[in-house]
Amino acid sequence: MIVMFQKPRGTRDFLPEEMKKRRFVENKLREVFERYGYKEILTPTFESFELIAKKTGEEIRKQLYVFKDHGGREMALRPEMTSPVVRFYLNELKNLQKPLRLYYFANCFRYERPQAGRFREFWQMGCELIGCKEPLADAEVLNLAMDGLINIGLDFDVHIGHLGVLKGVLEKFNVSEEEEVKIRRLIDKEDYDNLKIYLTQILGEEKKELIFEILKFKGSREVLDELKEILKDFPKSMEAINNLEEILEFVIHDKYTINLGIARGLDYYTGMVFEIYGKKGAKQICGGGRYDNLIETFGGEPTPAVGFAYGFDRIMMNIDDLDIEEESILIIPVKKDKELIKKSLIIADKLRKAGKIVELEIMGRKLRKALDYANSRGFKKVIIVGEKELNEGKVTVKDMITGEQKLIGIDELTNF
Amino acid sequence: MIVMFQKPRGTRDFLPEEMKKRRFVENKLREVFERYGYKEILTPTFESFELIAKKTGEEIRKQLYVFKDHGGREMALRPEMTSPVVRFYLNELKNLQKPLRLYYFANCFRYERPQAGRFREFWQMGCELIGCKEPLADAEVLNLAMDGLINIGLDFDVHIGHLGVLKGVLEKFNVSEEEEVKIRRLIDKEDYDNLKIYLTQILGEEKKELIFEILKFKGSREVLDELKEILKDFPKSMEAINNLEEILEFVIHDKYTINLGIARGLDYYTGMVFEIYGKKGAKQICGGGRYDNLIETFGGEPTPAVGFAYGFDRIMMNIDDLDIEEESILIIPVKKDKELIKKSLIIADKLRKAGKIVELEIMGRKLRKALDYANSRGFKKVIIVGEKELNEGKVTVKDMITGEQKLIGIDELTNF
Repeated sequence: MIVMFQKPRGTRDFLPEEMKKRRFVENKLREVFERYGYKEILTPTFESFELIAKKTGEEIRKQLYVFKDHGGREMALRPEMTSPVVRFYLNELKNLQKPLRLYYFANCFRYERPQAGRFREFWQMGCELIGCKEPLADAEVLNLAMDGLINIGLDFDVHIGHLGVLKGVLEKFNVSEEEEVKIRRLIDKEDYDNLKIYLTQILGEEKKELIFEILKFKGSREVLDELKEILKDFPKSMEAINNLEEILEFVIHDKYTINLGIARGLDYYTGMVFEIYGKKGAKQICGGGRYDNLIETFGGEPTPAVGFAYGFDRIMMNIDDLDIEEESILIIPVKKDKELIKKSLIIADKLRKAGKIVELEIMGRKLRKALDYANSRGFKKVIIVGEKELNEGKVTVKDMITGEQKLIGIDELTNF
Repeated sequence: MIVMFQKPRGTRDFLPEEMKKRRFVENKLREVFERYGYKEILTPTFESFELIAKKTGEEIRKQLYVFKDHGGREMALRPEMTSPVVRFYLNELKNLQKPLRLYYFANCFRYERPQAGRFREFWQMGCELIGCKEPLADAEVLNLAMDGLINIGLDFDVHIGHLGVLKGVLEKFNVSEEEEVKIRRLIDKEDYDNLKIYLTQILGEEKKELIFEILKFKGSREVLDELKEILKDFPKSMEAINNLEEILEFVIHDKYTINLGIARGLDYYTGMVFEIYGKKGAKQICGGGRYDNLIETFGGEPTPAVGFAYGFDRIMMNIDDLDIEEESILIIPVKKDKELIKKSLIIADKLRKAGKIVELEIMGRKLRKALDYANSRGFKKVIIVGEKELNEGKVTVKDMITGEQKLIGIDELTNF
């Protein structure tokens, strides 16, 4: 017995219906990136393991697909796109005029425990705006992220935070580098219980409380006034709040929540950060922010940058009743006759050149069977090519919904 | 000193200009697949090594990127798409009505010695027409392959052969299975010197000559009459020639060459085979044919199938002077003033919603510098947003080619 092959665990095959939806949504998002002047780039599917580990540390190894190429070099399937884009930037793009507006649509890989909404191969669509430190740049990527989702008619919530607020507090409290790393790790893991214990231990009850107050800070734009009151003695935090306010001035959509609890990737982001959630299961569908130190970390000149990535598969999970209307026509030669088939081919060619989707009945089905097939496949129009009609330069066009049939001249077919 | 990261050897980063061209060509080809009623599918980037090795044998290992996942299962980055598509077909599509018209656009991976036109990550766009044994099906994929290239304005040569011709001869000569495998390998490697020696040894001079005559058979459709004369005592070969003639009846483009020397993938293909060459360096840009045994080999019911794949990168090498006109507009607030910027954002939003590509000057450049920037980036139109003009509901539109400037009402901007 032959063992049936299966796709690798945690990966997916995409059916035609799914691919159609995915391409539709991809193009709708792409449209918005393009209209904002972002240019598409693409990097290889795998990179040197060193590059990938640089941003996230060796511990990412267990989440990666790592392999040696035949030259013995250690490679990894990319788990995200920012590191590859930064590498590309440093290799070939760094001398271009600023700002640089780049976007990508690419598959990424993580060895995750298979579960709902998590796949081992998944797609990210995102952008990086490189070389501009202005609040207007932060606002641009926020506007773009929201406009993309609006363009596909998706309902969402945007939460915007700023890492500078917390950093300003930690700095004033003279938290050591080592302690900060530990705090970051706990926040990243959302391990608030241990964070509470740790902060009380190193800073005392009162300071711990203040930090938790910040992490829980949430609300409409007005809450920032309250926050300023609380943090008036923390100059770096005040700077961050002002920066956030300046950014928000330029955000054209007002449906967002200030959320200082967004502390994602503290190692990596340096300023404004944001997350967008879909309404289905409130899953995160987008995340981004400012990362002014990353390019330097990778060996480049200090260069400000801000960007985000959509989780394309998460977006798709928030879309279900997308009905992409597509009219296709089936051409049926009434019998398996060389001349009728040739004529059918010419008609098909003509209609396709006019932009129509045309399938030809190629199985040699008899008319009755061919019509059954057309029905079950959902064709709305069928063209029947018969000898007698052809002699008059005509074919029969059948409307499969009404059942109506009419003779139409071949020359008039393209505009029926 | 920090070591600069590099992309993996043999892979590529794609610059914005390249991606734009690639997406343009991809969409032009995609259009043709769609118009022929083919539906896009996609499979995972890696598959079990067993699946990949099934079609080509263990010896492909040295050309593959093989790795173990964390569960110890051996995986390989896909080197081509037919095996994955057949697996997908057997897992989920086999009960759909026939014929099944599928297409894909996917990156594939081979560990090749880096050289011109060969990359370790490369793209294939192709199709499989499953479930139809009719000559009309073979003709359909031939027509589609040519129409795609015509749609991107590419010059090409099509060579069409049929493996049944040679197979009929070998069968009549009572060549054993083992001998046939050896012959196939030599033909696949185009090792004609050793083929000559081997054939003479097992079949003698005369039969060797006949086989070489077939392999060298090339010309317009009329040469088939000559071939029929030579092979009239080889019934299986005659069947193959008749099949080829029937197929050619339904090929709508007449620019092709009959070439019985096309003996690619003898293990795999069973009938008509074809290759298409571009004019630049005469490199093969497409290959395909009929493979009626493959699905069975993979554990399915015997199912006829025919398909092809374009080498997308090879196609791109045949296209250079593609000039994709794209008008983008730069909006320049005359000074770094909150209100001017906000108004600029609103204008940008409006123009983008009308489908225009709009960049905003976000670096805080002064007008002079911003215009220099617009010039060097090749913007043809610039919108200057100034206080005085805004008070009258107007902005300045500057044509960067003629230098002409005019005041335009904000409401009229979308149709200027």
